[in-house]
Amino acid sequence: MPISSSTDPILLLQSLLKCRSVTPADDGALGIVASILEEMGFIVTLLHFGPAESPTPNLYARLGAGKPHLCFAGHTDVVPPGGNWSHDPFSGEIDGSYIYGRGAADMKGGIACFLAAIARYLKENPLKGSLSLLITGDEEGPAHFGTKKVLQWMETQGEIPDFCLLGEPTNPQEMGEVIKIGRRGSLNATITIKGMQGHVAYPHLADNPVHKLIPLLQALTQDPLDQGSEWFAPSSLQITSIDVGNKATNVIPAQAEIKLNIRFNDLHSGSSLSAWLKELVERHAAGSEIDISVSGEAFLTKPGMFVEHISKAVEDVTGRKPRLDTGGGTSDARFITHYCPVAEFGLVGATMHKSDECVSLSSLESLTRIYQNILQRLGL
Amino acid sequence: MPISSSTDPILLLQSLLKCRSVTPADDGALGIVASILEEMGFIVTLLHFGPAESPTPNLYARLGAGKPHLCFAGHTDVVPPGGNWSHDPFSGEIDGSYIYGRGAADMKGGIACFLAAIARYLKENPLKGSLSLLITGDEEGPAHFGTKKVLQWMETQGEIPDFCLLGEPTNPQEMGEVIKIGRRGSLNATITIKGMQGHVAYPHLADNPVHKLIPLLQALTQDPLDQGSEWFAPSSLQITSIDVGNKATNVIPAQAEIKLNIRFNDLHSGSSLSAWLKELVERHAAGSEIDISVSGEAFLTKPGMFVEHISKAVEDVTGRKPRLDTGGGTSDARFITHYCPVAEFGLVGATMHKSDECVSLSSLESLTRIYQNILQRLGL
Ligand SMILES: [Zn+2]
Ligand SMILES: [Zn+2]
Repeated sequence: MPISSSTDPILLLQSLLKCRSVTPADDGALGIVASILEEMGFIVTLLHFGPAESPTPNLYARLGAGKPHLCFAGHTDVVPPGGNWSHDPFSGEIDGSYIYGRGAADMKGGIACFLAAIARYLKENPLKGSLSLLITGDEEGPAHFGTKKVLQWMETQGEIPDFCLLGEPTNPQEMGEVIKIGRRGSLNATITIKGMQGHVAYPHLADNPVHKLIPLLQALTQDPLDQGSEWFAPSSLQITSIDVGNKATNVIPAQAEIKLNIRFNDLHSGSSLSAWLKELVERHAAGSEIDISVSGEAFLTKPGMFVEHISKAVEDVTGRKPRLDTGGGTSDARFITHYCPVAEFGLVGATMHKSDECVSLSSLESLTRIYQNILQRLGL
Repeated sequence: MPISSSTDPILLLQSLLKCRSVTPADDGALGIVASILEEMGFIVTLLHFGPAESPTPNLYARLGAGKPHLCFAGHTDVVPPGGNWSHDPFSGEIDGSYIYGRGAADMKGGIACFLAAIARYLKENPLKGSLSLLITGDEEGPAHFGTKKVLQWMETQGEIPDFCLLGEPTNPQEMGEVIKIGRRGSLNATITIKGMQGHVAYPHLADNPVHKLIPLLQALTQDPLDQGSEWFAPSSLQITSIDVGNKATNVIPAQAEIKLNIRFNDLHSGSSLSAWLKELVERHAAGSEIDISVSGEAFLTKPGMFVEHISKAVEDVTGRKPRLDTGGGTSDARFITHYCPVAEFGLVGATMHKSDECVSLSSLESLTRIYQNILQRLGL
């Protein structure tokens, strides 16, 4: 049986797991997806963005011209396997009721299930709406030339969908637990506090930058940023590093550096937090330098028809009513939200980024049915 | 004229400045001192302490057997010259009314003046008491095998003096400003705060050691250690470094390190401060490791006959009544104080440890006269 027409997510996943697509490598992964989609009638465009010597590979595929237009988004790149595996991370080995491999959960498994779901759906239904796939080869890396650039290209082509379903592993332990309808934003800041170097025996002739950072650290951490909002947990600020690097025990150093990260909910924005940080620095350590980078704004897809369909599909297949959640790290949904409603649902993520990453064979079948059920419910 | 019988401190200083005695090198400096003293009748003992492959050179010399016994202490080693000199740091060049060279002030100049003062004194007076010199080649380095070891050896030989005069440069700007009658103690501590590493998106699964150090930093710095005592300025605590070394912006680190130095007066001791530090660490960051090293206790030579003689000698020669002071860094007086009263008086230290270190020719003559005047007053 040619893999390209398979309705079996296990076979599809095995062929993807054999590609050593550790970011930025692709190792044929997008080509497999492309040929399967072409076989099903999709118009596939491979898109390379970024520096000519090492462009980031991406794929966009479209089938049908009707409404509504659902886009499935995902990534074929994976994080490095690391050590301590008891199974080959790149063979797609099945052991008992699990299939092992780097990317099984995050998120070649989600892609395999969506491909199988389309194959099954198209066998039973004429396509009334349209279906597209946005698959990037750089989600685990810097992500500068992945989903973000493909979306810009899609906009110029009039390819913006009505809804987007991102297949990241959203379930902590069991299939059907969690649909992600938003993500917190993330901001990094580096604050460099200047002082004046001197000898510890003559502190009045120096200006110790470490002592200046104490009230600043306190102001940054003493009060919670908020108490959470309707759909979000409280925002969280973590000081991730303080560095002075002074080896001389008798010297007051010339400068000190604080690094921090804020994971913030929809009560804040990158710019509101930047203004708050600058004000605190000005008040407690005037003259310091602050360098801020916002890697993603908080976003929320307000529960409505689209999220409701996903939720019902999960309930139909698993018998479990999923929780709507906005926790965890960032994902490419932070880019998609600027174009259309986006929600995330995929496999169980318990082993993602760990050794012996795996998913159960039954969860692959469940997810395929859930995705097919969603296509049905959306009237595609 | 053989340098060995010189009563001219300038000639003596020039010969010492030509030795490149950057710690631990000696480059003949102690040999020059030894031959001058032998010529004057001293019994000179060269003492090497420390590892056989790189022993620290020291000199002890004694003349006379009567009472009182005054010991002059000092060091021939110097700190590295560094850059930006407009005069050769190792030639003893005279330019205008100044003599330049590394160690001119700290403290080959003090040694030269003391040698000249002895030569002048012995020409005019029969020695009634006894004179000794304790000169080390490691004061600017770790000082483990210098003055401290020579004193232990002197004790076994019954050579402990009645008074000790240390020739460090004590005057900030002009000759005769300051006699040091004590020094603050110095304590270094390294505190390692342990936490639990984790992802910034899941702070509840981690334990951020940087956040634990904030209340500790505050407790360490919020109140002054004291308000000073009769002869001492207030003690001072300086945080000299904080280091985490976490490069990953999305990771809560596993540990953080604080380094601090305390310069303390006679209201504290190394052990009272160690107990205070341990108590604070236990209260604010339980489970942290603390490593303390006391490099010197605070000490004071209470003003009395010895200090009074030095003071009067300074006033006789310079017309200035010197201030009795206990400020500044540590010196080898911290070792000597355990054996006998010790006070410090020397040249102007404004250029010590800097480029173009120099002393005025007139200050060398003044200091020689002051030292000779002290010998007279003590009835040697
Ligand atoms: Zn992923
Ligand atoms: Zn010195």
